[in-house]
Amino acid sequence: MKKGLFITVEGPEGAGKTSVIKKIEETLQERGQTILLTREPGGIEIAEKIREVILNPEHKAMEGRTEALLYSAARRQHLVEKVLPALEQGITVLCDRFIDSSLAYQGHARGLGIDEVWGINQFAIGDMMPDCTLYFDIDPAIGMARIAQNKGREVNRLDLEGMSFHHKVREGYLMLLERFPERIHSIDASRSFEEVYEEALSIVQSLQ
Amino acid sequence: MKKGLFITVEGPEGAGKTSVIKKIEETLQERGQTILLTREPGGIEIAEKIREVILNPEHKAMEGRTEALLYSAARRQHLVEKVLPALEQGITVLCDRFIDSSLAYQGHARGLGIDEVWGINQFAIGDMMPDCTLYFDIDPAIGMARIAQNKGREVNRLDLEGMSFHHKVREGYLMLLERFPERIHSIDASRSFEEVYEEALSIVQSLQ
Repeated sequence: MKKGLFITVEGPEGAGKTSVIKKIEETLQERGQTILLTREPGGIEIAEKIREVILNPEHKAMEGRTEALLYSAARRQHLVEKVLPALEQGITVLCDRFIDSSLAYQGHARGLGIDEVWGINQFAIGDMMPDCTLYFDIDPAIGMARIAQNKGREVNRLDLEGMSFHHKVREGYLMLLERFPERIHSIDASRSFEEVYEEALSIVQSLQ
Repeated sequence: MKKGLFITVEGPEGAGKTSVIKKIEETLQERGQTILLTREPGGIEIAEKIREVILNPEHKAMEGRTEALLYSAARRQHLVEKVLPALEQGITVLCDRFIDSSLAYQGHARGLGIDEVWGINQFAIGDMMPDCTLYFDIDPAIGMARIAQNKGREVNRLDLEGMSFHHKVREGYLMLLERFPERIHSIDASRSFEEVYEEALSIVQSLQ
């Protein structure tokens, strides 16, 4: 049986990726395609517990490398328990953030080093690199302005970082785009929702 | 100021290392030396929380690589919060199990691969390899018989593994001994407590 496609979705804060892929999921389901939209920790108990350790506000002493190892551990468990079983059934998996987030945020923006964070993530994912990655590119100034306007969105720790951090995140993504030009498709996310959605959908469909 | 010595203590189950280093700690303290005896997670809250995730009996779905990443994360935090500050004050640190346990137990005995487990542990510890490692060598048949006789000792998950697992653990340690002959000192732990203690103490003292 043909294995399912593994597609990951990446981008800085405020790029609108989560809303776009939600609509792609709805569209494909209406067309009768089976698709799994997920994001870490994805309801996997062990991964949820790891995330609680990462996000516990009392854990102020959490060191950067400890955090990176915990994200890799949660990624491994979510991959093994949720993503792989779906792919093995031939289901297309759309995963909101995956290895590139760790490389851009922790490897580059936090300064741990892309190659070093790559190493522990390779251990976590083995040969399960995504077949394709949609990268929603946006100037952080626009992305953060969008977030400020979107009152319904829950503010997370990263939203509170300074603008220079968000610029570094984008810089990290652009470095990854150079490194993996075949896998990562860049989408200009400064355009309207409809335009971005149409382009993302057409990429997903061209793969199937 | 001269930094403290970082000594780790390793060995299969039932080698008696924990009792021996407890007595070494007492002896050195009686002689007026400052020494820190610790073992992961060592009372470090974040590391304790990570350990709870690893050991929770409900987490039957815990995958081998997830577990290895969690141990590395707990190791990092314990190192940064407890071991490094002591070493920086010039205190000798005796740490009951460290990187070699992951390499022997998970890398070799569990079959994840010594080099792969080495990679994530290098990320966790950086250049903080121990100055010296005391390896308490014992035939698993003798070690497990000792454990069976020691009613006061709490039985852990690893004690319940089959004998072939414990043989593999020792095999892993012997491979590490070949790989790091300068760092790892092998001590024949099948002898009496006094003999083993005297040898371990003399190695620790020769380093100071």
